[in-house]
Amino acid sequence: MIVELISTGSELLLGDTVNTNVSWLAQELNKLGYSVAYQSVVGDNPGRMAEVFRKAGQRADIVISTGGLGPTQGDITRQVLASSLNRNVVYNEDAMAEVRQFFKRVGREMPDASRREAMLPEGSSVLENPVGVAPGVVTVDGDVTYILLPGPPGEMKGMFEQSVVPYLSKRFGSQGVVTSYRYAIYDIREIDLEERVMDLIKQQSNPTIALLIKKGYIELRITAKAESLKAAHDLLNPWAHIIYRRLGSHIGRELDVSMEETLGNTLKDGSATIATAESCTSGLVGKLLTNVSGSSDYYMGGIISYSNDVKHRVLGVPQKLLDTYGAVSEPVAKAMAEGAKRVCNTTYAVSTTGIAGPGGGTANKPVGLVWIGVTGPQGTVAHKVNLIGNREDIRLSAAELALYYVNLYIQEKGDK
Amino acid sequence: MIVELISTGSELLLGDTVNTNVSWLAQELNKLGYSVAYQSVVGDNPGRMAEVFRKAGQRADIVISTGGLGPTQGDITRQVLASSLNRNVVYNEDAMAEVRQFFKRVGREMPDASRREAMLPEGSSVLENPVGVAPGVVTVDGDVTYILLPGPPGEMKGMFEQSVVPYLSKRFGSQGVVTSYRYAIYDIREIDLEERVMDLIKQQSNPTIALLIKKGYIELRITAKAESLKAAHDLLNPWAHIIYRRLGSHIGRELDVSMEETLGNTLKDGSATIATAESCTSGLVGKLLTNVSGSSDYYMGGIISYSNDVKHRVLGVPQKLLDTYGAVSEPVAKAMAEGAKRVCNTTYAVSTTGIAGPGGGTANKPVGLVWIGVTGPQGTVAHKVNLIGNREDIRLSAAELALYYVNLYIQEKGDK
Repeated sequence: MIVELISTGSELLLGDTVNTNVSWLAQELNKLGYSVAYQSVVGDNPGRMAEVFRKAGQRADIVISTGGLGPTQGDITRQVLASSLNRNVVYNEDAMAEVRQFFKRVGREMPDASRREAMLPEGSSVLENPVGVAPGVVTVDGDVTYILLPGPPGEMKGMFEQSVVPYLSKRFGSQGVVTSYRYAIYDIREIDLEERVMDLIKQQSNPTIALLIKKGYIELRITAKAESLKAAHDLLNPWAHIIYRRLGSHIGRELDVSMEETLGNTLKDGSATIATAESCTSGLVGKLLTNVSGSSDYYMGGIISYSNDVKHRVLGVPQKLLDTYGAVSEPVAKAMAEGAKRVCNTTYAVSTTGIAGPGGGTANKPVGLVWIGVTGPQGTVAHKVNLIGNREDIRLSAAELALYYVNLYIQEKGDK
Repeated sequence: MIVELISTGSELLLGDTVNTNVSWLAQELNKLGYSVAYQSVVGDNPGRMAEVFRKAGQRADIVISTGGLGPTQGDITRQVLASSLNRNVVYNEDAMAEVRQFFKRVGREMPDASRREAMLPEGSSVLENPVGVAPGVVTVDGDVTYILLPGPPGEMKGMFEQSVVPYLSKRFGSQGVVTSYRYAIYDIREIDLEERVMDLIKQQSNPTIALLIKKGYIELRITAKAESLKAAHDLLNPWAHIIYRRLGSHIGRELDVSMEETLGNTLKDGSATIATAESCTSGLVGKLLTNVSGSSDYYMGGIISYSNDVKHRVLGVPQKLLDTYGAVSEPVAKAMAEGAKRVCNTTYAVSTTGIAGPGGGTANKPVGLVWIGVTGPQGTVAHKVNLIGNREDIRLSAAELALYYVNLYIQEKGDK
């Protein structure tokens, strides 16, 4: 099955927006065994858009577009598809019901303009939008299926996962399987990791193995191609076994479960709670922990102690430690964690203090140096890490590692 | 002059690589006054690639491709262009000289495979590659100019700047200038904003006007095309004047300065300091504030009061307020901000408390409801907002708006 992806929107042609929708969709479709053969981008110009839709219909089995489903005059994808198929745009009851339901759900009045979002090409069916207003559209024309998705990435992704995947599966069945196991590997250098799996790298064909440097960890991915999911898993499992045996606790998590979910599960298993004390990450660890819906069960809160004054007065870090060792030091990282645990009255706490740059580095304490403190019933530890990248990279890496090290602490100390 | 950009490479179709080349090229070409009307992506498949080149030649004046100029068997762009124009591929002396010069420059022997990089469509001329091996290719066919650039971003950009820009300028002269003013608009619904500038939308031709929904704000962009930068500004300034008059303080900032920088500048101007008290955003406001290097001058820190216990014990929110109004309420938002100001000893403080979802919403307090509190020397205020999107969207929007509302407070109250 050949797929063409069409992205609409002048902001893409102007280059102001990087087209991340299309790479995400391509990945998801490839996982399902569909071949994305073409991607096209066109602006909000009716004639050009119609031409791109017509061309796509000539060379693809499935045409998926993103963008132009909103309520404004500039949102013309529905009309353009209709005109390129020589159909009328008609009022669609199901779409109207979806739009009404959205406004009911958020407790707001439906603006008149939103009626446009229910005007679809004749003979279309509707895809539920789990996130925003505009319903998606499916229009079948001869052998070609057109699927119109909204442009905002959150809406597009939600609709794809909840509505498009089931639709494709029901309509076209299985397309064969390409599947991967992906692991997040922590606390090891890339060259050391490569060394440990060099034999797999050398003998790879199916499965294949790949290492990708991410922020705070390395992604290790093994991928197999087979007729069925079971057959793919049969190819992958022996490799997974080898990887687990060689890397042990360096495998912080499987990649599709974030570090914050992994830690959340560990905390829930132990009916434990956690607090944060952040300096260089300045709230990012707290933000990550609460990416997980329901994290209020175990995350109580924390202190962003960006200034030394807040470290001292709110977290109770002794002024003498700050004066003697400096804010970026093992004793201060430990005292910060202990302070957060006490102030927030939790089982565990984690702290970060480091130099995110670009300024502030010295020969002894270079940009990228971060101390991560962890405290709990079994005492307090601290880890020193040297991170690379720009300010944002360093802060993201430090936050990710903070979550990894607390999780490791709980798992290792819990076993004793 | 209509331009089509073609990106080749299966990694783009698989979605493993985000296509940043195309947005960069689009921006550069638009700045030079060329209209990028289409972007196409196609894999390393000769038949499909040739079809894409043929289609581009029918609808564009200039076709620029990236990728497939290397020395391997998979690098087929030169051959594909030749075949789509019914020309032969021939050995090109200039290209060979370029390749030889590269290897001489880096002091390495030329591999035999690199001879392929000098096999160009008959009648082509060569663009110097200032970074890598493969020369670029220019092939003129009737009214259409084809330009083949390498895929690696560093090589592509270097070649574009050093070779393509002068070539275009010499061949086609000045295309004038396209320039935009971009604003971030806050605290107004898209349809209300559209209403306020409807006359501009209806009469647009040059300048044009566009609205784009972002997280916590709407981007409003006006774009003009003219013979010179000055002439473009002369077209834009009257519109900018209208927009400022009609939208006033809804214009939170110009888009190329982030909200955290804008607020940082306001705080520095007043030698003021700020603290945060975050519930639903759980550290994100603190993280954003400290995206700015040097933010330690004005950001002291804050409390992530995810639990009611931390709201009460650390921030001093009266238990009675939490019991009577609930955590997501105007009085609690205000008390949180006041608590952070007191605990961190700052001039201003901002708080967030809301329902980020997906769970936890009720009829009275639906998912997306967020209260933002702001306190300072002129008292305490709170803003109620109803945000849409998924959990992440709602939290990003809330954090962005928190920064906007503090900035607004300081500017408005400071004027009194």
